[in-house]
Amino acid sequence: MTVGIIGIGLIGGSLAISLKESGMEVRVIGMDASQENLDKAVRRRLIDEDAPLETGVPRCDVLVLATPMDAMLDLLPRLLDMVGPQQTILDVGSTKETLLTGVKHHPRRGRFVACHPMAGTEFSGPEAAVPNLFSGKTCVLVDTQDSDADAVDVAKRVFATAGMTFTHLDSRAHDLHCAYVSHISHIASFALALTVLEKEKDEQRIFELASSGFGSTVRLAKSSPDMWVPIFRQNRDHVLDVLDEHIEQLSRFRTQLIKRDFDGFHERIRHANQITKILT
Amino acid sequence: MTVGIIGIGLIGGSLAISLKESGMEVRVIGMDASQENLDKAVRRRLIDEDAPLETGVPRCDVLVLATPMDAMLDLLPRLLDMVGPQQTILDVGSTKETLLTGVKHHPRRGRFVACHPMAGTEFSGPEAAVPNLFSGKTCVLVDTQDSDADAVDVAKRVFATAGMTFTHLDSRAHDLHCAYVSHISHIASFALALTVLEKEKDEQRIFELASSGFGSTVRLAKSSPDMWVPIFRQNRDHVLDVLDEHIEQLSRFRTQLIKRDFDGFHERIRHANQITKILT
Repeated sequence: MTVGIIGIGLIGGSLAISLKESGMEVRVIGMDASQENLDKAVRRRLIDEDAPLETGVPRCDVLVLATPMDAMLDLLPRLLDMVGPQQTILDVGSTKETLLTGVKHHPRRGRFVACHPMAGTEFSGPEAAVPNLFSGKTCVLVDTQDSDADAVDVAKRVFATAGMTFTHLDSRAHDLHCAYVSHISHIASFALALTVLEKEKDEQRIFELASSGFGSTVRLAKSSPDMWVPIFRQNRDHVLDVLDEHIEQLSRFRTQLIKRDFDGFHERIRHANQITKILT
Repeated sequence: MTVGIIGIGLIGGSLAISLKESGMEVRVIGMDASQENLDKAVRRRLIDEDAPLETGVPRCDVLVLATPMDAMLDLLPRLLDMVGPQQTILDVGSTKETLLTGVKHHPRRGRFVACHPMAGTEFSGPEAAVPNLFSGKTCVLVDTQDSDADAVDVAKRVFATAGMTFTHLDSRAHDLHCAYVSHISHIASFALALTVLEKEKDEQRIFELASSGFGSTVRLAKSSPDMWVPIFRQNRDHVLDVLDEHIEQLSRFRTQLIKRDFDGFHERIRHANQITKILT
C-alpha cells in the first residue's frame, strides 16, 4: 500500500511510524509546503520519499490530509479533483462542519472519509512524531454516509493498524463535543499561562515553585498557534458557547470567594470531583 | 529520631515513606482525628504506632503538621503550648500568612518552622501516600527569622532527607506566589470540569472522546474540597486577584472570537507559549 501523507508533522509523522511499525507493507510519500519539514521527515525515516502534490498524489492508494485546518479547506477540494475511483482520502482534522460543507457537492465526495483520531501532544512538527500515539485511543468517523463504503473500510484499516477503535458522529455533533473535551481545555490552558506570565514577572520564582499540578494544567499552553487558531476559527460558535459557560463557572467561584460562601464553594468542588467517574 | 506526623494523609504519609526509606533511624508516631486513617497508616506501615496528641507529642523530637489548613489554625497554638525547647514543629501547609499571624506572639514561636514542600498529587488520604513524592522538588521555608536556628536546621534535615532543595520567602510573598502557581490552577481545573459536566450530559461521549490533553488539564479537578476550601479561605484576597486576571484573560479570548480577531488570538497564543521557557 502506498500512503501519501500531506502535512508531515506530529500527527502525520506519528501515523507514518505506526503504519511502518505494524509490519504492513507500506511505502510512505511525504508532501508538505515546507521543504524543511520534508527533509527532517526523510532524515527521521518517517517517509520513504518526498514529492510535490502533482506527482505524489497519483501514485498513492491512500492520502492522509494532516495539515493545519485552514490549509485543509484549500487542499481537500484540490485533492478530490485529482483522485480516481480507487483512491481514498482521509483527514485527521479537529473540526469537520466547515470542511465537509465545502466539498458537499463535489462529484468525488465519496472518496473522502472524515476522520478525527483523538490523540496528540502539545508539540508539533516532524520532530514531535512518536510511536504508539494512537494506540488504544478513539478515532471518530464523521458523516460516513457520505463516503463510499470501500473508502470507509480503507480508513478503518489505516487507523485500526495504528491501534485505534472507532466511534461515529455527524459533523455538527463532532464539532460540538470537541469544543467541550478538547478546544476549551486549550483555551483554558492558554489563558492560565497568560495569567501567570502577566502577574508573575519573576520567572525564576515560577520555575522554583511550580509543582507538577501547575505543569499539568498549563501543558497545553505550549501548543502551536498555527495549528489552533484555524480550529478556533472554524469552530468559533461552539467554542464561544463553551467558553461562555467556562467564564460563568469561574465567575461563580469568584462570587463565592467575594461573599465568603465557602460551603457553596465546597459543594461545587465536590461536584467537579465527579469528573473522576468519567476520566481515569 | 522520633517523628510525629499529625494528619497522616498524602503528604504526611509520603514524608513518612521518604524518611523510612532514607536509611535514617526514625520512629514514626501517627496522630490523626480519624482512627480509620490511623489504622490504614499502620496497615501500610507508614507509621510505627498511633497515639493521641496528649501522649504522642511529648515523645517526639519533630512534629510534622500535615492536616488541612483549617485544622492547622487550631492545632498549631495547641502544639506550641505543649512542646519543650528541644522539640521542633514543622508544617507542610499551602498558605502561611493567617497561620503565622495566629502564633506571632506565642512564647514558643521559635520552635515552629513554616515549610511548604511544593509537591503533591490530586489524591488524598493515607492510601495516596507514595515514595519519592518530594525528590528533586523545592521546599519553601517561610519567615525563618522568627524560628530558632536549631529548629530551622532540623526542618532542613527532614526535607533534605526526602530529597528536597530550599528557597526562602516571607509569608506574604509565599501566599501570593502560591496563588499564581498553584491555587489558580486548581480553580481553573475545577471550573473546567464543571463546564464540561454542565454542558456535556452524555458522559459516555466524554469518556470516548477525551484525549490525554483534556485529562491533563482537568487532573487537578479530582482534588479534595476538604483540603482546598480552607486554602482558598485563607488565601482569599490573593486568589481573588489572580482569579480576576484569569477571567480577564479568558474574556479577551472571548472578545477576539466574537470580533473574529484571529490575528490577535494568534499573537496571544504565541505569548502563552512562552510558558515553555519556564516549565520544562
